[in-house]
Amino acid sequence: MQLGIIGLGRMGGNIARRLMLNGHTTVVYDRNEAFVKGLSEEGATGVADLKALVAGLQKPRAVWVMLPAGDPTEDTINALSELLEEGDVIIDGGNTHYKDDVRRGKALAEKGLHYVDVGTSGGVWGLERGYCMMIGGDVETVQRLDPIFKSLAPGVGSIPRTRDRSASADPRAEHGYIHAGPAGAGHFVKMIHNGIEYGMMQAFAEGFDILKTKNSDNLPQDQRFDLNVADIAEVWRRGSVVSSWLLDLTADALATDPKLDGYSGSVADSGEGRWTIEAAMEQAVPVPVLSTSLFARFRSRQQSTYGDKMLSAMRFGFGGHVETPKK
Amino acid sequence: MQLGIIGLGRMGGNIARRLMLNGHTTVVYDRNEAFVKGLSEEGATGVADLKALVAGLQKPRAVWVMLPAGDPTEDTINALSELLEEGDVIIDGGNTHYKDDVRRGKALAEKGLHYVDVGTSGGVWGLERGYCMMIGGDVETVQRLDPIFKSLAPGVGSIPRTRDRSASADPRAEHGYIHAGPAGAGHFVKMIHNGIEYGMMQAFAEGFDILKTKNSDNLPQDQRFDLNVADIAEVWRRGSVVSSWLLDLTADALATDPKLDGYSGSVADSGEGRWTIEAAMEQAVPVPVLSTSLFARFRSRQQSTYGDKMLSAMRFGFGGHVETPKK
Amino acid sequence: MQLGIIGLGRMGGNIARRLMLNGHTTVVYDRNEAFVKGLSEEGATGVADLKALVAGLQKPRAVWVMLPAGDPTEDTINALSELLEEGDVIIDGGNTHYKDDVRRGKALAEKGLHYVDVGTSGGVWGLERGYCMMIGGDVETVQRLDPIFKSLAPGVGSIPRTRDRSASADPRAEHGYIHAGPAGAGHFVKMIHNGIEYGMMQAFAEGFDILKTKNSDNLPQDQRFDLNVADIAEVWRRGSVVSSWLLDLTADALATDPKLDGYSGSVADSGEGRWTIEAAMEQAVPVPVLSTSLFARFRSRQQSTYGDKMLSAMRFGFGGHVETPKK
Amino acid sequence: MQLGIIGLGRMGGNIARRLMLNGHTTVVYDRNEAFVKGLSEEGATGVADLKALVAGLQKPRAVWVMLPAGDPTEDTINALSELLEEGDVIIDGGNTHYKDDVRRGKALAEKGLHYVDVGTSGGVWGLERGYCMMIGGDVETVQRLDPIFKSLAPGVGSIPRTRDRSASADPRAEHGYIHAGPAGAGHFVKMIHNGIEYGMMQAFAEGFDILKTKNSDNLPQDQRFDLNVADIAEVWRRGSVVSSWLLDLTADALATDPKLDGYSGSVADSGEGRWTIEAAMEQAVPVPVLSTSLFARFRSRQQSTYGDKMLSAMRFGFGGHVETPKK
Repeated sequence: MQLGIIGLGRMGGNIARRLMLNGHTTVVYDRNEAFVKGLSEEGATGVADLKALVAGLQKPRAVWVMLPAGDPTEDTINALSELLEEGDVIIDGGNTHYKDDVRRGKALAEKGLHYVDVGTSGGVWGLERGYCMMIGGDVETVQRLDPIFKSLAPGVGSIPRTRDRSASADPRAEHGYIHAGPAGAGHFVKMIHNGIEYGMMQAFAEGFDILKTKNSDNLPQDQRFDLNVADIAEVWRRGSVVSSWLLDLTADALATDPKLDGYSGSVADSGEGRWTIEAAMEQAVPVPVLSTSLFARFRSRQQSTYGDKMLSAMRFGFGGHVETPKK
Repeated sequence: MQLGIIGLGRMGGNIARRLMLNGHTTVVYDRNEAFVKGLSEEGATGVADLKALVAGLQKPRAVWVMLPAGDPTEDTINALSELLEEGDVIIDGGNTHYKDDVRRGKALAEKGLHYVDVGTSGGVWGLERGYCMMIGGDVETVQRLDPIFKSLAPGVGSIPRTRDRSASADPRAEHGYIHAGPAGAGHFVKMIHNGIEYGMMQAFAEGFDILKTKNSDNLPQDQRFDLNVADIAEVWRRGSVVSSWLLDLTADALATDPKLDGYSGSVADSGEGRWTIEAAMEQAVPVPVLSTSLFARFRSRQQSTYGDKMLSAMRFGFGGHVETPKK
Repeated sequence: MQLGIIGLGRMGGNIARRLMLNGHTTVVYDRNEAFVKGLSEEGATGVADLKALVAGLQKPRAVWVMLPAGDPTEDTINALSELLEEGDVIIDGGNTHYKDDVRRGKALAEKGLHYVDVGTSGGVWGLERGYCMMIGGDVETVQRLDPIFKSLAPGVGSIPRTRDRSASADPRAEHGYIHAGPAGAGHFVKMIHNGIEYGMMQAFAEGFDILKTKNSDNLPQDQRFDLNVADIAEVWRRGSVVSSWLLDLTADALATDPKLDGYSGSVADSGEGRWTIEAAMEQAVPVPVLSTSLFARFRSRQQSTYGDKMLSAMRFGFGGHVETPKK
Repeated sequence: MQLGIIGLGRMGGNIARRLMLNGHTTVVYDRNEAFVKGLSEEGATGVADLKALVAGLQKPRAVWVMLPAGDPTEDTINALSELLEEGDVIIDGGNTHYKDDVRRGKALAEKGLHYVDVGTSGGVWGLERGYCMMIGGDVETVQRLDPIFKSLAPGVGSIPRTRDRSASADPRAEHGYIHAGPAGAGHFVKMIHNGIEYGMMQAFAEGFDILKTKNSDNLPQDQRFDLNVADIAEVWRRGSVVSSWLLDLTADALATDPKLDGYSGSVADSGEGRWTIEAAMEQAVPVPVLSTSLFARFRSRQQSTYGDKMLSAMRFGFGGHVETPKK
């Protein structure tokens, strides 16, 4: 099958590669000419602008936009919508807020265009492991694109089948992609995925912090253990309840840098973590762990907060307590 | 009434002063001779050791120990218990863990000694405002010491009476002291008081942090407000739902240093905050706010945590994300 | 001074009353005729519709809208803006989201109308205690309305002056009202006030829960204390660090119903709590306590959550653990 | 190798079975005769009391105690210590607090006995998947027991090797068991494992709660998605960042009961979750997510809390707000 791809960064470029490896043809564009040239040498049809991209695709066209969420994606989809024709489909594979998908889906439908949102997990590993995809859009369009999704997905692989999963259940889930619902549903599910990811990461972070500081000078000598965190991450990978891909990555990191000296601990957050909390508030769902995980990242990026200083000020006020400087 | 006092630091010294102002006599000891000398000049009977202190008191004796919790208090009470006689009472006014009170109460009772634990709030303001006291011990002993407690307590003052408070309710509560229960109950109630204090302080700290950063460079120019935090603290002192003594102290601090530049934000915690969480765990009470408030203090004392670094390491592992340095 | 008031519920009605008590005149409207009739008998000029209200006011007119946030307020302000004339001012005293204020302020300015947002704390006690007000709008208009605000505010009262507050500081803060900034700033500050309120309330709730359950059957007999929570709330009102208006209210409630049997514990939340978290996320401020307090309310309204069931399902999955039914 | 096993419940019985499958011999005891009889029929040497167990083992003896933590384990180890001889070893495979291990290790060493603590993860799946083991004790004794641990462990299996793991790293970790340190270190690491497990579980629980309630009546019709949670769990198992054994179990549960109607959501907690928080407090490590996860379980076991009722009481106090009953 043929697919147009706009945005050839790490994600878009590897999506093109994985599709070509699976026998699909791609027409690709990026405002960075070097990226277009590189992929052309790998077998893609590189083009110089959106007009050429649209011209290079057979009807009904399918164009995958893989750009940063917000203006870059919005502007590109607007421009595309002027060039495409009835029956064509625009796929947003980026990290768009699901409410933008809902809005766009409606606006594009009025022009006779289809809109599909794809929440994509897999990061730098996707080319090799395949991309886990959560897809929103109308049934026919998602079905039409199935060859693309099937090729991008990880497939059943060596992961054991789920016990008791019904024979009538959607087989796509086992292959690593689902049609979650109408436009927006794909990014909604991906958003929650990231929210959960924040919580799991924070759980590991806190646990390993206790393990590491069990040898701290602050503890009496006879209460310390000098634990090998790399071995602990490794041992939990087999047979323990916390075995997970995040643990695998932790074991990777600790194998070479058990003190994690290579990191300052200033942790970024992307939109999905915040949007997850917004969704929970709209639905009145208690999410203390997901929110606390997000806030731990905010906190990690500051040396000290105005709030902390206020605590010190109050303590001085009622008790005359004077601060001890930070270590 | 006559009272022996051991430990003449800020708390013990002011307790002696407030008692003398109210017509009581005190026999005082501290290992720091200067403190003894100072209080002697204010009217107390200063003594050079525990033996002299015991000798200087009429039976049945009452000795208030006002020392750091842990070994200093424990050792002094042990020494006292060898010198005192049946019917005498030891009062622990420090920040002892209530389980130590329960243990001590039993041990001293076997020697015919009474034990009273007094959780004391009021800090540096107690001499002027009076001390809010939560008292544990047997009924007769607490009753016998009532003149002491009554003089130390703030009294009804200008605080309005509680609507609907029963005429048969214990009048001591309105005067600012209560007999909470048997030995240990006083410090238990004081411990929870401090746990609540942590939560209230953190609520203010977080709220003012949002107010302060509403003018941050990170926000688009047209979404900023340059708010006067000193005026905000001041206005809330009258008629708002958050009016409180902690807010009064906050207003004090912000009146002269609205940026709180005088503080680094390294916030200490005392035992009570941790013990409160332990008690909650023993009783299976969910205390997410009290615990999170405690942990915010732990976090405030570190530039970055091992856990934060691990989050960065995982993000690099799955997404190739490279850290942005801290501001 | 003369003020038009729309919305004569508990808040709006009492605002009219407090103004009239202070010598102002009011022209009042509510779609509930009984409310209009009632206030007319107390001295207000009651009118039958917005047109009559506008007709009854001298230029430049000032109209205070005291309606539920959202559509009722929005629709009324839209209708008013068609009736008012250049130089008139609309005051929104409700619980509007500050971003709506910013938008409205701009839209009304284009019509030559002034817009003032007033965040109001004081609830059912405002008539008696006065209203703590946080005001947004342009300097001249807020100044013009000063007689209104001054009369509604609590005034300095018996609250002690803040130590070290500068003589040049805005005197309005001490009277219980501030001009926080341009349109929106008033409701922004009120929103944070409510966020803090949630945190303080939750801190008390958790602390008293530990006190109450210290006598639980789940504890060994010799570790229980049968604490008098009404006396504890009372004693903390004098001289303790947690003394506050919320504690006063708690003491009120516990004085007559120490078991709180009159409440099921299904706790509502208004918009401000959620908006505070949104603001914190926009500004990347860590607010784990404010958010956790909000989520405790969400949780309180459910018998059990889907998430809880999932925990049980996982525990059964890895350990064969079977649930014990709820008490 | 020969091993004595005391306690033949699900864990102890399966440990015996897995050892026998791997060519070891076992001498087994349980106060439930049926359990002893059953395992005897599977090849074990069943005995009627501890004395017979000791008599049935060759020196130096090794006895694995697999009983509930607390008194059952403590009493049995005390009794055993009277029967065993210098050079023998007692292994505690239960869920003992690591501080009890430290204490026991010292006490038994004075009698010339060795003590090894084994934190064991794997639950009902251990017989099939093997047990992930974290071991504390002296080097020689742990080495002597290596054939036992090697047989119980999962082995390398099909789990990919960790990239960059040093060739000189301890090979046992890759086989699913580690020697964590001296007595107590094994249970300490297992305790933290469980703490992390709580956090991960809560992250999934909160995320799926948002997914499920995205179709709630509380949302406007056009903002709902009717998501298939079973398919979502399934799709995340392949290629996503949250893939994990806990997700596999979740997918199992949702495959047959997507509404989780079979669970009331009353979630138990074992000691390790609480002890993890205690350890964090001793070490001043901020663990807001691990603690909040624990408290979510406490909360799940109550219909409403005293704290919730207090929130309602305060809201009534300041705003006249009357509760809406729970759904």
